[in-house]
Amino acid sequence: MLKENGLPRTVTLDTAAAELVIIDQTLLPAKLKLLRLSQIEDMCEAIKKLRVRGAPAIGVAAAAGLYCLAARYVTENEEEFFSKLKSDADTLNATRPTARNLSWALEEMLGCAESRKGQGVSTIKNALKVKAKDMEEQDVAVCKAIGEYGAALLKDGDTVMTVCNAGALAAVEYGTALAPVYVAAEKGKTVSVYSLETRPLLQGARLTSYELTENGINTTLICDNMASSVLAQGNISAIFTGCDRVAANGDAANKIGTYMLAILARHFGIPFYICAPYSTVDFSTKTGKDIIIEQRSPEEIRSLWYRESMVTEKANIYNPAFDVTPAELITAFITEKGIKKPDEL
Amino acid sequence: MLKENGLPRTVTLDTAAAELVIIDQTLLPAKLKLLRLSQIEDMCEAIKKLRVRGAPAIGVAAAAGLYCLAARYVTENEEEFFSKLKSDADTLNATRPTARNLSWALEEMLGCAESRKGQGVSTIKNALKVKAKDMEEQDVAVCKAIGEYGAALLKDGDTVMTVCNAGALAAVEYGTALAPVYVAAEKGKTVSVYSLETRPLLQGARLTSYELTENGINTTLICDNMASSVLAQGNISAIFTGCDRVAANGDAANKIGTYMLAILARHFGIPFYICAPYSTVDFSTKTGKDIIIEQRSPEEIRSLWYRESMVTEKANIYNPAFDVTPAELITAFITEKGIKKPDEL
Repeated sequence: MLKENGLPRTVTLDTAAAELVIIDQTLLPAKLKLLRLSQIEDMCEAIKKLRVRGAPAIGVAAAAGLYCLAARYVTENEEEFFSKLKSDADTLNATRPTARNLSWALEEMLGCAESRKGQGVSTIKNALKVKAKDMEEQDVAVCKAIGEYGAALLKDGDTVMTVCNAGALAAVEYGTALAPVYVAAEKGKTVSVYSLETRPLLQGARLTSYELTENGINTTLICDNMASSVLAQGNISAIFTGCDRVAANGDAANKIGTYMLAILARHFGIPFYICAPYSTVDFSTKTGKDIIIEQRSPEEIRSLWYRESMVTEKANIYNPAFDVTPAELITAFITEKGIKKPDEL
Repeated sequence: MLKENGLPRTVTLDTAAAELVIIDQTLLPAKLKLLRLSQIEDMCEAIKKLRVRGAPAIGVAAAAGLYCLAARYVTENEEEFFSKLKSDADTLNATRPTARNLSWALEEMLGCAESRKGQGVSTIKNALKVKAKDMEEQDVAVCKAIGEYGAALLKDGDTVMTVCNAGALAAVEYGTALAPVYVAAEKGKTVSVYSLETRPLLQGARLTSYELTENGINTTLICDNMASSVLAQGNISAIFTGCDRVAANGDAANKIGTYMLAILARHFGIPFYICAPYSTVDFSTKTGKDIIIEQRSPEEIRSLWYRESMVTEKANIYNPAFDVTPAELITAFITEKGIKKPDEL
């Protein structure tokens, strides 16, 4: 449905030019602009500044980006090639610590290269190109599958709630948390969405409201502190969120505020679903306590977006980008392999 | 303690000039500016635009404002005087619907005037002046008493959480929710505060962080969606909020997000206190369902404060200014008459 509407893919590999093409999400909703990236500094800047964001999209972008870098290595020496490749993968991997998909995608790319060792640099480059493009198409297929499983939970006329942006703009197409809504709409069901604005970066306000309404979905934006007020009215049938990293025990790190929503969902007896591909599950991380939570700049809360600073310099500011929702508050994970209870992952 | 620091009263009646003097809170934290008001249009604008806000402060401002208007009535005819007085009281009362203190203060003033009926206009004017000034001093005494009762709940080294601004800037001095913190500090205890920024009007960011740090209180600002993350860390000993109207059954309307905090407090086993004078209790309102919730402009969420609009025009926006916390989630009310369970009010 996104294509009908003319929205381009959030992340795509232009194989002919060996360029990573992304929608610059920092300019939305005012302006839809594509960036073409081929230098590592620009890729890292784009990830750090959230020009491309969302766990699946970051993974696909890193894979495509690594290929674009490798395509430009001027060497036929495999040892030198692998040294550069690993170094660039490390640099990309260091841009953001929380999302599992980033390191997963880079490991996949390195594994692909390793498996062609001894076959010559140009063969390896070609394999990386095929692999990166395959991961991009795979992301679409995975999101579509999540959407199919999730849509089966929705009836015509339902209203759901979501936080942050785990929609088409967080993946290549469809997204994770919003995929059930899009697939339900494709099947002719009318589903409405309450979107939390998601301070401080306002992904819900800027991105989720934008992509949903561009795709014809009835959307109501609220501030994060209004969720309990809306849930108390009894019209929300389910909460769908995305996820950045799932620990082996089912604890899930996602955008700050997700934990709050899960507690409110429990209080009001509303099902709370996390939509995520299996690439988000990190079986090497035992529990949520072991997940590193990215701390971001106080200026995101104090002054970003505003005409002037809103907080005295005398106050401390705490700005964690994610929180960890304990497995016991998660009704189920909606994955490309079906709907799984936290202990069934 | 506020006086030591040189912060003027939030609201005060200049009896000599018959002018209502307020801090223009829309300019904080950048600029501390006093406004002197004597015309009804300016008073209504100041209340509607939140130049003066906070349930107790609105009440004192309306009482002082009504006197300033009455002082200027050019008539010796009591009937004409009362007709103007009631009409102006109605106009002031219509500015904001949720806070109980506004109508309470105006009823007190009208009752004062009624009790002098037949004694002549200048006697009534004088009685209104004395009454308005008395209500201002009474507000300070009531807030101080709330602070004394609340401070007894705090130990040296405690950290509390609050939402919106129910501090000195929401009353004449001391405030309600922050009064326990200020009184504890006066008694030599070190108490720290986590302040929720309180979207969309950012009273926590702009006002609470400002007044607390100006008064030497260690303050950490967070976004509203970070409360669960902080509470989960186990360092918050209590949540203190203010209140705009308490129903007879103990349900309490306060700034949007209060209900969320009460649910989170219950989840984490943290005491949740509402600090309010008895003038906030509306025994004529049976339950929270009967409290009118003020709906405010979508532009407060879409574009206010920002350099550009953050939300597509295609999205709906829901902007309730208050929510109602059910009595069963409220540990106790801290009032000027002591600490009361919801059913002991």
